[in-house]
Amino acid sequence: MRGLLVTVEGVEGSGKTTVTKSLAEWLQQKGLPVIATAEPGDTPLGKHIRELLVNFSERTSWAEAFLFLADRAEHVTKVIRPALERGELVLCDRFTDSTVAYQGFGLGLPLETLIELNRIATNGLTPDLTLLLDVDPEIGLQRTQKKTIFERRDLHFHQRVRWGYLWLSKREPNRIKVIDASQPFEVVVSKAKQFVEEALQRWR
Amino acid sequence: MRGLLVTVEGVEGSGKTTVTKSLAEWLQQKGLPVIATAEPGDTPLGKHIRELLVNFSERTSWAEAFLFLADRAEHVTKVIRPALERGELVLCDRFTDSTVAYQGFGLGLPLETLIELNRIATNGLTPDLTLLLDVDPEIGLQRTQKKTIFERRDLHFHQRVRWGYLWLSKREPNRIKVIDASQPFEVVVSKAKQFVEEALQRWR
Repeated sequence: MRGLLVTVEGVEGSGKTTVTKSLAEWLQQKGLPVIATAEPGDTPLGKHIRELLVNFSERTSWAEAFLFLADRAEHVTKVIRPALERGELVLCDRFTDSTVAYQGFGLGLPLETLIELNRIATNGLTPDLTLLLDVDPEIGLQRTQKKTIFERRDLHFHQRVRWGYLWLSKREPNRIKVIDASQPFEVVVSKAKQFVEEALQRWR
Repeated sequence: MRGLLVTVEGVEGSGKTTVTKSLAEWLQQKGLPVIATAEPGDTPLGKHIRELLVNFSERTSWAEAFLFLADRAEHVTKVIRPALERGELVLCDRFTDSTVAYQGFGLGLPLETLIELNRIATNGLTPDLTLLLDVDPEIGLQRTQKKTIFERRDLHFHQRVRWGYLWLSKREPNRIKVIDASQPFEVVVSKAKQFVEEALQRWR
């Protein structure tokens, strides 16, 4: 695989979408072949799955997890792997770590099982770099305008999600770089660029 | 778990739905507490998932498998387990074996992985009895009026599905009872009732 996969993770309102957009513009200006994508929902099937995930609240934890995995399997096969095979730099807003943080730490599903399911859904694809935008969910939830099923879950849920992300970053410190996302946006983006720059240097 | 789970499996047009209905009526007449249910689609979330599964053809094999698993997790938790806990007899038209036959043998996904995923989606629930209505798919496909994505797959796909079911019946001969579904409907139902009667005798 000649490309580079960079994922952006964090709780609601941590700034993932804006940071991903800034990074994509910056990399395009550098003349690099880059695509910015997101989970769930960035395939035709995924759009329907996303609609269920953000709006259809009557579901068990495992049904939720399997819907995310269906979206991921589709996304990896149809979008991410083809781009990586073309040698592109793929920026993905949420990926495998979201499943462990949200459905594992948030909903209480077994972590090692979810990690194994991620392996199956991605056929073993792991990000080259993951930027974890870490912020207290109390701050994050105030920032965001969205009100899907996920934002409506209680603060304890979101605190567990944050702990989950930090647990993952301890487990894989070489891959997951933590950025304090309570800082001003420019500082967060600047730090994100620095990590991507380091990954680019290893890549080239 | 005080109830009894009987699943009915087979290729398209093998007569699963009609046999399930006949068995349910017969058991009700015996005064037994029985529910007849089916996969995919017998929960509110499942109805939406089923809609994607039968109509939305642009999908990878793994996305298809995970959608079935999402439906199953929901169905087991919301419908099947509660009925079994109330001591009821549950008749289910398609269940875990469909995943191994269709997505394993039919689409080529790894069998042992699918068996493990079934275990996760059902939290270890296995049928007490499975009736496999075995028929040459060439006959089955002529019988059925349905024209979903599944019926439109080629004959080789359906032949692999049939072999998959027979493989499963060799693997678990005590659970899976094969009925020659090329026989007249009355003979098939009579044989099905006989297997259920035996299971009821073990159950009581």
